Amino acid sequence: MWAPGSLTVAPGSRTVADPPAMRWWGWGDPAHPPALGAGALEFLREHVGVAALPRPPVALGAVSIEPSALPEGALAALREVVGEQGARVDHGERVLHAAGRGYPDLVRLRAGDPEGAPDAVLHPTARAQLRALLDVCARHSLAVVPFGGGTSVVGGVAPLHGEGQRAVVALDLGRLGGVLDVDRDSLTVRVQAGMRAAALEQEMGRRGLTLGHFPQSFEYVSLGGCAATRSAGQASTGYGRFEELVQGLALVAPAGDIELAAIPATAAGPELRRVVVGSEGTLGVIAELSLRVRPAPVVRLYEGAFFRDFAAGARALRALAQEHCAPAVARLSDEAETRMSLALAGTGAGSGGRSGGGAGGGASAAFGTVSSGVKRRLGRVYLGARGYAEGCLAILGFEGTQEEVAHRRGRALGVVRRHGGLPVGRSPGRAWVAQRFAAPYLRDELLTHGVMVETLETATLWSGLERLHEQVGSAIAQALRAQDTPGLVMCHVSHLYETGASLYFTFLARQREGQELAQWQAVKRAACEAIVEGGGTITHHHAIGRDHAGWLEREIGHEGVAALHALKQQLDPDGIMNPGKLLAVSAG
Amino acid sequence: MWAPGSLTVAPGSRTVADPPAMRWWGWGDPAHPPALGAGALEFLREHVGVAALPRPPVALGAVSIEPSALPEGALAALREVVGEQGARVDHGERVLHAAGRGYPDLVRLRAGDPEGAPDAVLHPTARAQLRALLDVCARHSLAVVPFGGGTSVVGGVAPLHGEGQRAVVALDLGRLGGVLDVDRDSLTVRVQAGMRAAALEQEMGRRGLTLGHFPQSFEYVSLGGCAATRSAGQASTGYGRFEELVQGLALVAPAGDIELAAIPATAAGPELRRVVVGSEGTLGVIAELSLRVRPAPVVRLYEGAFFRDFAAGARALRALAQEHCAPAVARLSDEAETRMSLALAGTGAGSGGRSGGGAGGGASAAFGTVSSGVKRRLGRVYLGARGYAEGCLAILGFEGTQEEVAHRRGRALGVVRRHGGLPVGRSPGRAWVAQRFAAPYLRDELLTHGVMVETLETATLWSGLERLHEQVGSAIAQALRAQDTPGLVMCHVSHLYETGASLYFTFLARQREGQELAQWQAVKRAACEAIVEGGGTITHHHAIGRDHAGWLEREIGHEGVAALHALKQQLDPDGIMNPGKLLAVSAG
Repeated sequence: MWAPGSLTVAPGSRTVADPPAMRWWGWGDPAHPPALGAGALEFLREHVGVAALPRPPVALGAVSIEPSALPEGALAALREVVGEQGARVDHGERVLHAAGRGYPDLVRLRAGDPEGAPDAVLHPTARAQLRALLDVCARHSLAVVPFGGGTSVVGGVAPLHGEGQRAVVALDLGRLGGVLDVDRDSLTVRVQAGMRAAALEQEMGRRGLTLGHFPQSFEYVSLGGCAATRSAGQASTGYGRFEELVQGLALVAPAGDIELAAIPATAAGPELRRVVVGSEGTLGVIAELSLRVRPAPVVRLYEGAFFRDFAAGARALRALAQEHCAPAVARLSDEAETRMSLALAGTGAGSGGRSGGGAGGGASAAFGTVSSGVKRRLGRVYLGARGYAEGCLAILGFEGTQEEVAHRRGRALGVVRRHGGLPVGRSPGRAWVAQRFAAPYLRDELLTHGVMVETLETATLWSGLERLHEQVGSAIAQALRAQDTPGLVMCHVSHLYETGASLYFTFLARQREGQELAQWQAVKRAACEAIVEGGGTITHHHAIGRDHAGWLEREIGHEGVAALHALKQQLDPDGIMNPGKLLAVSAG
Repeated sequence: MWAPGSLTVAPGSRTVADPPAMRWWGWGDPAHPPALGAGALEFLREHVGVAALPRPPVALGAVSIEPSALPEGALAALREVVGEQGARVDHGERVLHAAGRGYPDLVRLRAGDPEGAPDAVLHPTARAQLRALLDVCARHSLAVVPFGGGTSVVGGVAPLHGEGQRAVVALDLGRLGGVLDVDRDSLTVRVQAGMRAAALEQEMGRRGLTLGHFPQSFEYVSLGGCAATRSAGQASTGYGRFEELVQGLALVAPAGDIELAAIPATAAGPELRRVVVGSEGTLGVIAELSLRVRPAPVVRLYEGAFFRDFAAGARALRALAQEHCAPAVARLSDEAETRMSLALAGTGAGSGGRSGGGAGGGASAAFGTVSSGVKRRLGRVYLGARGYAEGCLAILGFEGTQEEVAHRRGRALGVVRRHGGLPVGRSPGRAWVAQRFAAPYLRDELLTHGVMVETLETATLWSGLERLHEQVGSAIAQALRAQDTPGLVMCHVSHLYETGASLYFTFLARQREGQELAQWQAVKRAACEAIVEGGGTITHHHAIGRDHAGWLEREIGHEGVAALHALKQQLDPDGIMNPGKLLAVSAG
């Protein structure tokens, strides 16, 4: 049942998994235990700097938003479609839909000062209501922000409206979250797009199947959101990017519906599935998806391997991809990320795991942890004078049948050894698995302690990977120093392809109190510039949203942007769909 | 060097492989030996009916085309860009670019009555000339047909022009056919799009690499053509569809260029690579491609397996795909195709192969051949009372390193046996490999004997595959009977995906002399109707072209078509690019 005040709601049909509520000011379950122990805090104090006093978020009631600008006639028309409880205008509900979960979103929310809030939040319960709602919104010049799990880290659900639009509504798809059909022969499942990835995974698990899509936002993200943003999960090396899972879909656009039946492949003109996937709510609302699933793996074997340096590890990952023996999850932390993990492992993080790990577990595992046992095994080869690791830790996660895992792992470890890698057993793998969704929780606590933490990512060809790693890392570090807040910059390679891979950067620094957004903007800008200058894509799996919209033209060119504008003009002629996202300027 | 009169020309740089000329009235090298032996002809006479007297094509000089309608000013402007020899208006050159290689194309060409011819044929030698040529064409209202290998079987290079256009030019990309760059670390190669697949394969072979893209048109098809039509090669189960090979590209459109750098993956909005790929020349000219390559396989092991019936074989193929042990090539002939292959094997087709096979080899192998030794092994289990096989033959082609092939083959044959399949050794595989590009040659000879032969294809989910096979096959057979020309209808499954596969139909019937095009049209229409009614895509790898344009809206809907029109309007505002293809009606 739908519970007022929760950010996501129980799916509409055939699935009953109830997501925990989400903190209005941060990530996840409000009851989630603290992840930042005393040791980790001490580490941060030494290397980054923390606030003198904790800086908790303001109370919900203190969050300041403008009164709803929704005209009464528009609200009445919306309620004709979805009823009174389906069109909410109360403070709490509007705040819950005021922002995604990017760093600037959280800075603003915690300060009680979001950049805006939707003037109403709509909760349709049937697909037919989507068309009716879009018609009302077009008639009343209301901007529409499709809202799934609300987990965007690039401003994808910011409540913006275009010129001349009187108000903005959030279209929460949480009640359109059921499984519509399972085709066991074809291994496809058709779902309502508001369904959460976690709920589908649970539902598939009961049938011995898996979607295999595990982004860090897994617990909250919606499947429609994954499609709209071209998500890639942590296991995408094995299961494919979300766009590869999409066999068919239904888009409800202001101009009409686009229904593309599930087919394995086609040559019938340009691939409209790949136009809708990645459209970020700017063309219409993704209402349904047909997704490829697989038999659930019998074995999940996650382990660690250590490489002398980043270059050697990257070469090994390249060989894994190009020799077709990569594990489902393959990640290589650079020296900085490895060093931090090992340092935190010494603060009591231990082996991680749901039951173990102690107070520091979340902090360390979120960046890839090894136990002190592993540290001992590494011995002097990889541990420098100060006891910090001077190599790079990789996590390799194999999934499949016994036979598949045994064969693939055998080949993969051969590749690892050929590149000088040292397998270090399962404890790093277990720690990573236990904490794979922990980083957003940790971020909340870092913010409480006055620490900026942000992640950004790109992808490039193997031939340019090391150079890009160096350039982007340097750009971030330099921008942090220029803000007088030198910090920690670290990175891992993940999401392997035959021709290249992604780079995922994390950086931490002391917040400049009162200047948090300007500080973030300066670093973000420097990183984006380094990425596009270095030949990387501006985003490998976070999407464009609002934050990258200014960079899209650098990637796809003037004519590419013009082509997207033309599509939008056709499908959303009044420009009501998610204005200000993807395309920086409205169609001229 | 470019040789007047040849359909394709030597690539522009770094690659010197010279393709053989193509018959102006049919397929391939004019010196290709006849493939239709006396035994095969007798088989056809008995089961299909042949013309009383051979019907050879008319002489080239007798081909009737209108005088070039190109205004002198336009010709002069074009020649300012590409010189006199770069803009040809002579009869031979125009006839060579008058049509693709679909059945109706050949019927018309052989009769000396093409539906038209380009008013000029352009041969640019540098990418910069493309922009200049498009500008001239826009200024003079000339339709532009991008022309690669000229191998379209769906009317994709038909010299059509839109309303108000004064003439049509073929833009032959054959001189833009060089390798621009090879990135060995990333396993990518950047090429000019006019390069032929065969030339690139040869060039890559010298470096120990392979593109792995082998459509039946392999000997002539251009890489730009593969991209424009979303081609799938015979080994696409192993190497991926052409769209999966494309990492980056450059499109020269009338409105401007779209350059998308090679990247392994991105979440930067809708995937414009997949919009350009499949655009069939209607948005602009694909000028460059960055393609994924792989190490050339050390082992190529092709073999046969026999299944009791189509359903059992299809279940085995499904398991191969879903258990991730499918060979690079996996094809399953249905009972009719298997029966014909075995019957022809008895006519002297023997084991096929380049050296053996006798007069009937090409005919039988083109549909999948087994030797009489294999027939003996099958014994009574699969051979019915009249000696015809009552089962289904599959070809399984494994490629890779020794170890990869051994492991994959071991798993695959386990799946085959689990589904009741009987491995029958390598002779069917050898025969298939030897003749994998032979069918278009055979078609020419069938036409000479008054036999209509046509192929068409679709793809659908596994759960609907058998039903679609039955429905489309029945529709074709019924349409043939309605024309009073009952014939042979056969099919194979190929191009395996986890969620489904393609169906490739071949049918043969006696031509209705003087009514050949109407006869073809009636059968084609019946097949297309059965495909879309049965939930298949209208085309899995032949593209839309002119012949399927009327069916596109059934597949992607009114709004899908409108979205494509909007893209075209943006990139090709004057509508000069390949009018009448992909989109049946011009943008309103």
